[in-house]
Amino acid sequence: MQAVEKLHCQSPGCSIQVSRIMRPDDANIAGNVHGGTILKMIEEAGIIISTRHCNRQNKERCVAVLARVERTDFLSPMSIGDVAHVSAEITYTSKHSVEVQVNVMAENILTGAKRLTNRATLWYVALSLENVDKVVEIPSVQYANPEQQEEGRKRYEAQKLDRIETKQRSEDIIFPAINVEPYTVGYSQSSLIHLVGPSDCALHKFVQGGVTMKLMDEVAGIVAARHCKTNIVTASVDAINFHQKIQKGSVMTVSGRMTFTSNKSMEIEVFVDVDHVMESPKGKAPAVTAFFTYVSLDKEGKALPIPMLKIETEDEKRRFEEGRNRYLLTKAKRMAQMQKSQ
Amino acid sequence: MQAVEKLHCQSPGCSIQVSRIMRPDDANIAGNVHGGTILKMIEEAGIIISTRHCNRQNKERCVAVLARVERTDFLSPMSIGDVAHVSAEITYTSKHSVEVQVNVMAENILTGAKRLTNRATLWYVALSLENVDKVVEIPSVQYANPEQQEEGRKRYEAQKLDRIETKQRSEDIIFPAINVEPYTVGYSQSSLIHLVGPSDCALHKFVQGGVTMKLMDEVAGIVAARHCKTNIVTASVDAINFHQKIQKGSVMTVSGRMTFTSNKSMEIEVFVDVDHVMESPKGKAPAVTAFFTYVSLDKEGKALPIPMLKIETEDEKRRFEEGRNRYLLTKAKRMAQMQKSQ
Amino acid sequence: MQAVEKLHCQSPGCSIQVSRIMRPDDANIAGNVHGGTILKMIEEAGIIISTRHCNRQNKERCVAVLARVERTDFLSPMSIGDVAHVSAEITYTSKHSVEVQVNVMAENILTGAKRLTNRATLWYVALSLENVDKVVEIPSVQYANPEQQEEGRKRYEAQKLDRIETKQRSEDIIFPAINVEPYTVGYSQSSLIHLVGPSDCALHKFVQGGVTMKLMDEVAGIVAARHCKTNIVTASVDAINFHQKIQKGSVMTVSGRMTFTSNKSMEIEVFVDVDHVMESPKGKAPAVTAFFTYVSLDKEGKALPIPMLKIETEDEKRRFEEGRNRYLLTKAKRMAQMQKSQ
Repeated sequence: MQAVEKLHCQSPGCSIQVSRIMRPDDANIAGNVHGGTILKMIEEAGIIISTRHCNRQNKERCVAVLARVERTDFLSPMSIGDVAHVSAEITYTSKHSVEVQVNVMAENILTGAKRLTNRATLWYVALSLENVDKVVEIPSVQYANPEQQEEGRKRYEAQKLDRIETKQRSEDIIFPAINVEPYTVGYSQSSLIHLVGPSDCALHKFVQGGVTMKLMDEVAGIVAARHCKTNIVTASVDAINFHQKIQKGSVMTVSGRMTFTSNKSMEIEVFVDVDHVMESPKGKAPAVTAFFTYVSLDKEGKALPIPMLKIETEDEKRRFEEGRNRYLLTKAKRMAQMQKSQ
Repeated sequence: MQAVEKLHCQSPGCSIQVSRIMRPDDANIAGNVHGGTILKMIEEAGIIISTRHCNRQNKERCVAVLARVERTDFLSPMSIGDVAHVSAEITYTSKHSVEVQVNVMAENILTGAKRLTNRATLWYVALSLENVDKVVEIPSVQYANPEQQEEGRKRYEAQKLDRIETKQRSEDIIFPAINVEPYTVGYSQSSLIHLVGPSDCALHKFVQGGVTMKLMDEVAGIVAARHCKTNIVTASVDAINFHQKIQKGSVMTVSGRMTFTSNKSMEIEVFVDVDHVMESPKGKAPAVTAFFTYVSLDKEGKALPIPMLKIETEDEKRRFEEGRNRYLLTKAKRMAQMQKSQ
Repeated sequence: MQAVEKLHCQSPGCSIQVSRIMRPDDANIAGNVHGGTILKMIEEAGIIISTRHCNRQNKERCVAVLARVERTDFLSPMSIGDVAHVSAEITYTSKHSVEVQVNVMAENILTGAKRLTNRATLWYVALSLENVDKVVEIPSVQYANPEQQEEGRKRYEAQKLDRIETKQRSEDIIFPAINVEPYTVGYSQSSLIHLVGPSDCALHKFVQGGVTMKLMDEVAGIVAARHCKTNIVTASVDAINFHQKIQKGSVMTVSGRMTFTSNKSMEIEVFVDVDHVMESPKGKAPAVTAFFTYVSLDKEGKALPIPMLKIETEDEKRRFEEGRNRYLLTKAKRMAQMQKSQ
């Protein structure tokens, strides 16, 4: 993801910073902070700044709801005791959506060292507080120059296309049986359920997107650890689209399966289904899907080789090929960017 | 507890699995997961499956409420980093109760080793969402054979008997004499204990001061609420000094007692004592003390009058006078400041 | 507390802002955020900025520890959904202490309204990471003018005097008589109070049974640890019956006392009482009771012998005998089952 130029913004409401100390529960047993903890903080900053923006024009009261997160890379691991500084600002608005750009810095307050660990882009829509099925219009932001606005419009169009594509894909989920042969898909496949509680929904009666992303990362991490039996850390998350609001009192089922392994990384597909236990038995409905990439680290933090995923079915083969394509595409993009910046 | 034969069940709602990684806060300082963490996960699986079952027939919306847990053995300790898999299924239904059988497996995702750590049986009843005093009927499950149903009926009758017995027994427990005369110091006096966990100590091995202050405010708030039975809010905290470091693994005892009431405010004295349970028995040592002032608010947020504290002993009288002096001093200082700023 | 003039500080490390959305768990049932939540956030900002400052000069690595908080007023209540902005800066340093001034603003992101809710002053000392008993020197800050430094020195002297006074006072507090003879029932007896919050009641307005069991295990574990001073783990829980619904906003009192010890196990009886503080003064009602069995483990996980419980009264003797009967009955059942399965 390329850095986005800052908007011309004097008012204090244009940016926000969320900071806190990383605690033991935020990290795995090797002391590396979970990617999910960071994703949750990123979304907290995003929902604050976009809800604030949408209510700027004194009309209908509304709340921002996460619609999409662009691909996010975890550039450097964070540790217990580090202070995470998450700063967010609005970089583009369309008629019905807000783009928020977020930077995460890790600060070691003992040595004073600071480093950029993440850069993320989130898209929010605003729903009326009176009627949560009504999408409200977004006040537009001021741009420093026409180019800045044009760049934003391009990003907006690109993500819009991608959102339609994912929407179609997420509807053909199949849960296979469990298989104990090492390194097969069934071997590491995992799922968890979460009962949506009040603190998952602070601003409205729906789950905050950050809560969902944290759970997805937790499952992906278990899949990765089962496959490699080592210290694993989140390297990146592909774009995630949120197609459905998840209500307080629902049961979320979060499932993950490995789709692809390269020499030094593994890709895990994660699904979220929602079950409204208190309502009529309409069964589960798919809510979110995403691809997480993990790497395996030795004690010095160096990347270890990943055991190759053992493919058993035609579907697994197809998914492995798709994963390889995503992997090669990302690699190619990164090389193009490096050459550009030289 | 003997294993219960599985019900003949095709539908996806018949069983559920809750899994998550054991975190530092789930365990004691030796790294063993608290039994309470497991019991809480067991019940989470139980409430989901039984609420889902009770709402299967499209009649009255209802929620399951735990009525009884059978004797539960902890067969093997679990550690931080293990994944706990809690799977629950419904094994019997009577007219008004559901039996849920739960198995807990601990998986070391690094070695792949799995072991059974618990087997539990829970009984739920279902209450109407509209009227929580109404017990609703439970849809019956299908059994594989008549013997299975008969075994369930026997377990049901056995627990029913035992429940009546415990009910009788628990009624003649005599509690330590508590001063029940309203508005005395003893009437609202409260204390709590808190086991210092890893997340209370992110930066070093001592409790962060903020954690201590939060616990102190919690106790002061309970004292205030017990005195007034209204919505109470913290108005101020006097200076607090921290004389002693509190180490991870210690037990903090936080106690509060009311010392003074004015027309519209009440003062609560809070003590923190520390018990280093894992060290030599040097007993408790006072670590922190402070005075909290609370006000009582009506629905519009206006301050309500406070019932006057009933004084019974010489010590209480002395403390009341000291409280009044602090109150008058603060009032005088505030007036002086207001005049200065005019 | 008067506002303190800002230090002349260009470097970004001189101030910090911690922000987050207020969640249901941060507030009481009337929706007012607990003072304790705010105090905890204030201290989080304080510890970050002062630890960072103390490590500025590249000498000994150290961490800041809270020594004192000045009187703090809560100027206006905060609500669920508000964003709390806590900003801290260093306003004075003596040789061994740092003064941090903190401002808390509440922002309603729906209306855009902001208001000052707190102003607090905290004093930290810095301890060496190598040797936590060693207080390290604080690098001094630059002042805008000599008056600013002089004002700070006065505040420093004033709090120093006050700290000595409180230290003396808190030493002659007399605590309720506790039985200090080791291994008696009174020696390990413990209780805690818990204010039922929103997250304890995810599906309905009553406490989930699992929350209650977790609290019961917490108290039982503290009783066991106080008795043995070793690593203790839950071995089993007898059947528990839940006779009463516990409502959100109630205060639960969970008490535990040791009833029986065998060679390698100890039995703890736990009671839960409920106090509906917001309702008419009907006092406490017993809600749940249970027996927990704990064992004590050495570093290899082998069971250690348990110090025998010292019996002092007739009631204790009767309860000890009852405990022994339960113990023998369980043992007999287990042996019968083992023989059956052979």
